[in-house]
Order: sequence, then structure tokens, then C-alpha cells
Amino acid sequence: MKIILVGATGTIGKKVTATLENDHELVKVGSKSGDVQADITSSESIEAMYKQIGAFDALISTAGGAHFGPLANMTAADFQKGLNNKLLGQINLVLIGQHYIRPKGSFTLSSGILSDDPIRNGANLTTVNAAVNAFVRAAAIELENNVRINAVSPGLVEDSAAMLPDFPGHALAKMDVVVRAYLKSVLGAQTGQVYPAV
Amino acid sequence: MKIILVGATGTIGKKVTATLENDHELVKVGSKSGDVQADITSSESIEAMYKQIGAFDALISTAGGAHFGPLANMTAADFQKGLNNKLLGQINLVLIGQHYIRPKGSFTLSSGILSDDPIRNGANLTTVNAAVNAFVRAAAIELENNVRINAVSPGLVEDSAAMLPDFPGHALAKMDVVVRAYLKSVLGAQTGQVYPAV
Repeated sequence: MKIILVGATGTIGKKVTATLENDHELVKVGSKSGDVQADITSSESIEAMYKQIGAFDALISTAGGAHFGPLANMTAADFQKGLNNKLLGQINLVLIGQHYIRPKGSFTLSSGILSDDPIRNGANLTTVNAAVNAFVRAAAIELENNVRINAVSPGLVEDSAAMLPDFPGHALAKMDVVVRAYLKSVLGAQTGQVYPAV
Repeated sequence: MKIILVGATGTIGKKVTATLENDHELVKVGSKSGDVQADITSSESIEAMYKQIGAFDALISTAGGAHFGPLANMTAADFQKGLNNKLLGQINLVLIGQHYIRPKGSFTLSSGILSDDPIRNGANLTTVNAAVNAFVRAAAIELENNVRINAVSPGLVEDSAAMLPDFPGHALAKMDVVVRAYLKSVLGAQTGQVYPAV
């Protein structure tokens, strides 16, 4: 299977890479590294990425930045960070990618546990993650040619344990649990699902 | 109570106005009409609105446009319509308004039933509505001075019955049911809630 992994060098992307690269033709995409470079905040850059890679069977996105900070001094510009990057960046991978993906292919996006379990400083991430989950549910009923779409919603992953003080009472998600959620989406048959991975 | 109603001349805003204007000091805000004009996609315009109105007890937003159309030809620019207007526009009313609202005041935003019950052509609205609901849950845990925030999530309202063919199987929400949900948020004591109104 030819699989595009956007965010291949990130905390989660590295582990997904290690699991998939032996059995599949994996095209690693990063903003500055990887086999192909792409800026997910730019339609032109996404279009160029797909043109360079050609037809594919699955796209996994483990990419997407957002703003983390107190609501009390948050601005619209702060809030735009997550909207332009983790939200619209990932959605635009689908909007453009639907014209390049093979029939029965799949898109797998990344959200996160803050969608339903907010913490201090996390208003941007809660909003963006819930929006990614909702987009997946909506897009699943319209994608053509049996193309599927799901989201993986990881908890705070163990490889990011340094952030635990910001997530009081949260469990650390084991990396292999998170990686398996991506495998379920890509190799399974469901669509419109949000797979929690905690 | 001094209540700002953004979107006062819209389908829902008109009915909320009729219910509140006798018992409260209602400041009607519209993009081109009302007591005060504001463009919710502009931080400068929102800031000017709050400066003109001064301290207030409650803000209700029944405003917000989004894109409606098939996923198959949706572009990032289409998607931005809802992100900039119904989503970030309403959120920015809170981000800026938190510095003007009186202690124990409240914000009430509007989402909609498509958040959880998607229809064809509705991917932008599903995403935006779910994001509004999530923002409300996140902001509620950070707002200071006992300021509250809720969302009302109306079904397709009876005054928009012309759109029913786009909403197969959906019930029409009676206007008085929808208006009561806004009253519950403004006059009640809960925070971080999403009130369905169908």
C-alpha cells in the first residue's frame, strides 16, 4: 500500500513510521524534512505535494500546531494558529487529496483528548480537536469512490510526558496504543470514526 | 440587565429581540443595522463595539455565516468562510468581551444541530458548530469573575423551513423553543453547557 505520512518526524509520526515502513511504500512528509516537504497551511504547497507523489492509497496526518496559553490574554491571532494549522491544514489535505487518492483509499487525521476533556490554557486545542473530529464525521458521508476518513484522538502520549503538569490527572497514552489506532484506521474498513487512544 | 444581542436582525435574533426587549436594556448589534454596527470578522470592529457600548451583563450571539456546498469541490477558501465568521467571529466576541463584561455576566453563542448530525453539503457547518460547542466547554473553565458561557444548538428553525429539503428527516425547531434556550443561558446559572433546541 502506498501511504503518505504527513508529520513523519513528529513525536507520533516517528513511531507510525517505524511500524509501517517495512510493509508499505511510505512517503514521509515534513515541513522541512522527509522524502517530500510540504507546508500544510498553504493550498499551493499541498497541491504540489500531491502532484509530486501521485496516486496513493492512504494519507495519515500526525501534523498540526496550535496555540497553548491562558484564555485571559488570548487574541484572535493566537486562536488563528490552531485554526490555520492543525484544523484547516489537515482538512485541506483532504479537500485537495480527495482528487488524488485511489478508490477505497483512506484519510486519517489527528485530533486529541482535549476535544472532550479541557484543561487550563487549552481552549484553542479543545476547539480545534473537536472540529477535526466533526469534520471527519461530516466528510465520511460525502467522500466518493468508497474513500474512507477517520480521526485518531490520542491522549497525552508518553513521549510527551514532560507536559504532564499541564494535564493534571490525565493518563499517559502508550505509544503502541496510539500507533495501533492509526493502523486500525488505515488497514480497517470503518469510516467516520474517531478512535480514542489513551 | 444590559444585554448585547449580536445578530439581532437575523431569523433567530429577531425572535430573541422580541422576547427580551421589554424587560431588559437590549443593545441590538448588526453588521449593517441595529443600534450598533459591528463586523464580527474584525477584531478592530469588535473592540470598537464594546468601547461604544461599555460595561454589560450578557452577550448573546445569533450571528455567523458559513459555507454550504458539496465536499467534492470545496476549497480551503470556502472552508475559511465558516472558520472566520461563525467560528472565530463568535469566539472573538468572547476573547475581547471578557475584558468588558461585568462580573457574573454571561456569553451565549450559537452552534447548531449539524455539529452531531451531518447532512450532505454541511461539512463546514458541522465542523464550525462542533468547534463552537467545544470552545464553550473549554472557555467555561477559564473565564474569571464568575463569568459564564454557554451555547445554544438549534435544529433547523421553523422560520427557515424553506431549507428543509437539504435536511432530510430533520424536525423543524419551534421558534419559542429556541428562544427559551437563550433565556436559559442568560437568566440561568449554568456554564459550559450546550443547550440543544429542537
